Amino acid sequence: MSNKGLLAVLSGFAGSGKGTIMKKLLEKYPEDYALSVSATTRHPRPGEEEGREYFFKTEEEFKEMICSGELLEYAGYVGHHYGTPRAYVEDQLSLGKNVILEIEIQGALQIKEKFPDTLLMFVTPPSAVELMNRLKGRGTETEEEIIARLSRAVEEADGCEAYDYLIINDDIDESVANVHRIIESEQLRMRRCLPEIEAIKNDLRTFLKEEEK
Amino acid sequence: MSNKGLLAVLSGFAGSGKGTIMKKLLEKYPEDYALSVSATTRHPRPGEEEGREYFFKTEEEFKEMICSGELLEYAGYVGHHYGTPRAYVEDQLSLGKNVILEIEIQGALQIKEKFPDTLLMFVTPPSAVELMNRLKGRGTETEEEIIARLSRAVEEADGCEAYDYLIINDDIDESVANVHRIIESEQLRMRRCLPEIEAIKNDLRTFLKEEEK
Repeated sequence: MSNKGLLAVLSGFAGSGKGTIMKKLLEKYPEDYALSVSATTRHPRPGEEEGREYFFKTEEEFKEMICSGELLEYAGYVGHHYGTPRAYVEDQLSLGKNVILEIEIQGALQIKEKFPDTLLMFVTPPSAVELMNRLKGRGTETEEEIIARLSRAVEEADGCEAYDYLIINDDIDESVANVHRIIESEQLRMRRCLPEIEAIKNDLRTFLKEEEK
Repeated sequence: MSNKGLLAVLSGFAGSGKGTIMKKLLEKYPEDYALSVSATTRHPRPGEEEGREYFFKTEEEFKEMICSGELLEYAGYVGHHYGTPRAYVEDQLSLGKNVILEIEIQGALQIKEKFPDTLLMFVTPPSAVELMNRLKGRGTETEEEIIARLSRAVEEADGCEAYDYLIINDDIDESVANVHRIIESEQLRMRRCLPEIEAIKNDLRTFLKEEEK
């Protein structure tokens, strides 16, 4: 196995529980994972620290990051920009940490294009009824907002077919275990282990040549 | 997740420990796995039972199985034929069992061609030195046989790049856990979960249509 970490993305329907999965995964395996810190053009809120919650940038700085290819993906959201800095992610990966990003489908596909080796996971509640119940249960959205979110979910369900894995979030601990299991398994993918096979092959060849003498 | 089992193949260098991994996997998770029973043209040995160790066939019956597509793969070995009956494997898969076959690269690639969804795993000792030590340690082969097996290993190392996963068998229990983990993860592959996504999408659409009324 190589010592390089894996870049993974967790997306999912609103109300799928992806945020909780992320939180529990990092709590349970703090050694294995690094959270990416996003860059944003919004102003820091009280208590937020540069480089901890976000890297805070001006609009101009943010645009420059886009132009110079410093962002793996970026998107606008209520008047501000958010993006994933490439350098931070690459540093963590080379330290052997798996980096998990919680981003939406558009950003996920941007990253997959730049890094085809990125692992895309999509989180869904076990059924549409459950999805609706969870949205209603949050009690934070109006009926119209819920309808809007459900329409959005239909669109997302089309996009999610481009993902590598589906996490059916019925039980939160099982889902955390599944995400961790997928990432551990993916490290054994043949294309990620070619250096190991190459080393064995070379050693065998050297040994056989010496035997021939 | 669908209830259908997964077809998996375990191959590996002589001395890689793949046989032990198979045995322990089936001992540890008897509910999850079914061993395939091979067809063979060799005669039953005392104590062997039809349908338990092998399905015993005449040369003629075996050829007919080949011609009628009843074998997933087959190969000759010291004057006899061995093959994997398709019907038995398909029955077990539809019962929700994962079927694991321990076969060589040629047979594995035959199966992958017929069933692209087959999972191919290749087992290797952690290094060439370890591979040589294990072969010598068995004490069952002459020096020449060992050299022959190592030459064979170099060829196999080329072929194994077509496999999906590499199991570096350093610790047997860890390898068993890895094989099981890979098979569990692969059941969450998006292409295997499309019916689940489709069902959620349809239910959401129905719900939204009713809301519009």
